[in-house]
Amino acid sequence: MPGKRVHMKQVKLKHYAPAVLKETDMEVKSSEITLEVEEGSQDVLVKNFYLSCDPYMRHRLTGLDYSHHPSFKIGQVLEGFGVSKVVESANPNFKPGDYVSSWTKWEEYSVIPKGERLTIIDPSFAPLSYYLGALGMPGFTAYVGIYEILKPKKGETIFVSAASGAVGQMVGQLAREAGLYVVGSAGSQEKIDLLRNKLGYDAAFNYKEEEDHVAALKKYCPRGIDMYFENVGGKTLDAVIDNMNPFGRIAVCGLISQFGKEKKDGVSNLYKFISARITMQGFLQSDHLHLMPKFMELMAGYLKANKLVYFEDFADGLDNAPNAFCRMLSGSKIGKQIITIAKD
Amino acid sequence: MPGKRVHMKQVKLKHYAPAVLKETDMEVKSSEITLEVEEGSQDVLVKNFYLSCDPYMRHRLTGLDYSHHPSFKIGQVLEGFGVSKVVESANPNFKPGDYVSSWTKWEEYSVIPKGERLTIIDPSFAPLSYYLGALGMPGFTAYVGIYEILKPKKGETIFVSAASGAVGQMVGQLAREAGLYVVGSAGSQEKIDLLRNKLGYDAAFNYKEEEDHVAALKKYCPRGIDMYFENVGGKTLDAVIDNMNPFGRIAVCGLISQFGKEKKDGVSNLYKFISARITMQGFLQSDHLHLMPKFMELMAGYLKANKLVYFEDFADGLDNAPNAFCRMLSGSKIGKQIITIAKD
Repeated sequence: MPGKRVHMKQVKLKHYAPAVLKETDMEVKSSEITLEVEEGSQDVLVKNFYLSCDPYMRHRLTGLDYSHHPSFKIGQVLEGFGVSKVVESANPNFKPGDYVSSWTKWEEYSVIPKGERLTIIDPSFAPLSYYLGALGMPGFTAYVGIYEILKPKKGETIFVSAASGAVGQMVGQLAREAGLYVVGSAGSQEKIDLLRNKLGYDAAFNYKEEEDHVAALKKYCPRGIDMYFENVGGKTLDAVIDNMNPFGRIAVCGLISQFGKEKKDGVSNLYKFISARITMQGFLQSDHLHLMPKFMELMAGYLKANKLVYFEDFADGLDNAPNAFCRMLSGSKIGKQIITIAKD
Repeated sequence: MPGKRVHMKQVKLKHYAPAVLKETDMEVKSSEITLEVEEGSQDVLVKNFYLSCDPYMRHRLTGLDYSHHPSFKIGQVLEGFGVSKVVESANPNFKPGDYVSSWTKWEEYSVIPKGERLTIIDPSFAPLSYYLGALGMPGFTAYVGIYEILKPKKGETIFVSAASGAVGQMVGQLAREAGLYVVGSAGSQEKIDLLRNKLGYDAAFNYKEEEDHVAALKKYCPRGIDMYFENVGGKTLDAVIDNMNPFGRIAVCGLISQFGKEKKDGVSNLYKFISARITMQGFLQSDHLHLMPKFMELMAGYLKANKLVYFEDFADGLDNAPNAFCRMLSGSKIGKQIITIAKD
C-alpha cells in the first residue's frame, strides 16, 4: 500500500512534571509525517475523532515509574483511549470506514500496530464519545468497582467521591439501579445540583464547604456507610472510615487529590478496620475485561430504557488538549473531559 | 444450694488509662464474698486456674468506647478468657470436676451466669493453659486470619509482625504447614532465635535493629510479600505495602504498637493499593466461631504428629496480674502471657 504523507499536529511531553503539571509541560507540534500500512503487517491506519483525558494518565507525565503504566519519555507523543475511524487496513478484522474504540496517540492520524486493542463500535448504539466514558473505560471501571469489588446488597448506603466525574457519574447511576442509597461529594454547587437533579443521587454535598468531614458524612449518610467508592484520596477516606458500618467495603479506584503531594494523606484510624471488619481493595478495570460483554449488555438495557445520562465536556482540537488535560485534573469543568479532533 | 462464702482476691480497674497503662491503674483487693448458685438458674460456679492476658483487653481500660468491647468501669473486676474447673453447677451441661475454657473474671472463683461461653475441655489432649493460646482465641485467630482472610496459595510469602507473640507463633506454624515461605519480625535476638530455630520461620529479623524497614523486608522477603498478618500497626505496614506483590493481601488482626499514641501511624502509600491491587481486611475471630470444630481437628492432627510447639510465660497469682498485663503490652517477655491462679 502507498504511504500516506500528512501534515499533522501531535501533543508531546515537553518536561517531566513530578509535582504540579502545567500546560507548558506539554507541547503541540506540527510535522510532515508518512503513515505507512505495509501489506501483511496487520497494521491499521486510523483517523482519530475523540481523545480521552483520564486521571491515570497523570502518572505518565512524571518521569517516574511507580505506576502500572510506564512514564512517557520527553518528546514522546501522548497516548490513551480514543475513538477513531479506519482509513486503511492491512488487517482482515477491520476495513476502511469502521468506527473503532482505540488505544491511540494524541495526534490526527495514527498507525495502530497489528490493530491491537481496536474494537469495532456501533455509532447507532450511542454517541461515539460515549465509548470514552459511559461505555468505555470509566463506565466499565464503575461497573467492576461496584459488582466485583464492593458487591452491594439492596438497601445499603454507598458513598462516592468525585461523584460527578467520568467514573463517579456512572457509579451513582449503577448504584441507584442496584437499589442502593447513593450519596456523593463534589467541589461546586453546580456539580451538586447535577448529582441531585440529573444523576439520581439521594444526597450530595460540596466537600469544599464542609469544615468537618466526619460530621458531614454523618448527616448525609444517616444509616452509616456500607460502601465507599474512592476516587480522590486525602482526608475524605479517614472521615468515611469513621462513619463505616460493620463489614464496610472500600474500593480504591483513584486518588486524584494526591497528585504532586510530597507527604501523602493516608489512613490513620486503622483500629476501625478491626472493630468494624472493614475491607479496602485497590483494583484496575483491566483485570476484569472478560466482563466487558456483560457490562455492554447492561448498558444497552439502560440506554434503551432511557435510564442513562452522561455529561461530557468537549475541548476543541489538539491545540487545546494540554489545557483540557490540566483542567480535568483541577476539577474546574463538569463531566467527562474529551478532546474533539474530527467528526467525520 | 448453699452459698459458698469465700475470702478471695480480685483484680479491679482503678484508673482509666487512655494513654499509657501503668500497673497502678489496676488494683488487687481481697474481700469476703458469697458465691451463690441458685437452683434452676443454670448458673455455674467455677474455680479459675489460668487467666489470659490479651492485647485487645487494653482497649477496655481506657474509659473510651471505640472498641467492639465496652470499657470496664472504675472498680469493675476485669474479665477475659480463662481455664477453670466446675465447683458447683445448676446447669445440666456441666458437673463439678469438669474442666472448662471460660469467659470469666480476674478473681479466684467466679459465678458464670447461665454457664454462658463455657466449653468443656479435655486435659489429656494438651496442657490446660494451651486452651488460652494454641488451642484458644489466639490460635483460632491465626487460623481465621490465614484461611478465611488471607487464603494462601502454596509457595507464597507471608510476613508476620509480633511473630513470637501469642498469635504470631501460631501464624508461623500454620503458614509453614500450608507450604508458605514464612518471614517474621520481633523485638529481640532471643525472639528471633526462637522464630528461626523452634517455630519454623524461614527468615526473621529484629525490627529494632533495622533502620530502613523497606530495605529489611526486601532482603528477608526476596520474592516480595504476598500476604501480611498485621499484629502491630505503625511504620511496618507502609514498608510492607512497598514490598507487596500484585494481588497482595493484608489481614489486620492487631495494632499493638499504636496504644496510647495521640497521632496514629497509618497507611500513606495508598497508590500502591491500586497499582498492585492490594486488599486489606480487618477481622475478628468471633465472627467465625462456626469454624472452631474444623480448627480443633487440625490442631489435634498437629499435636498428634508433634508438629506444634507453643511458648508461654506464666505469672504466678493475681498479685502479679497487673504487672503481667503491662509486660505483655511492652513485649518484654516471650510467648503467650498467662496468669496462674490455681493448678488443682
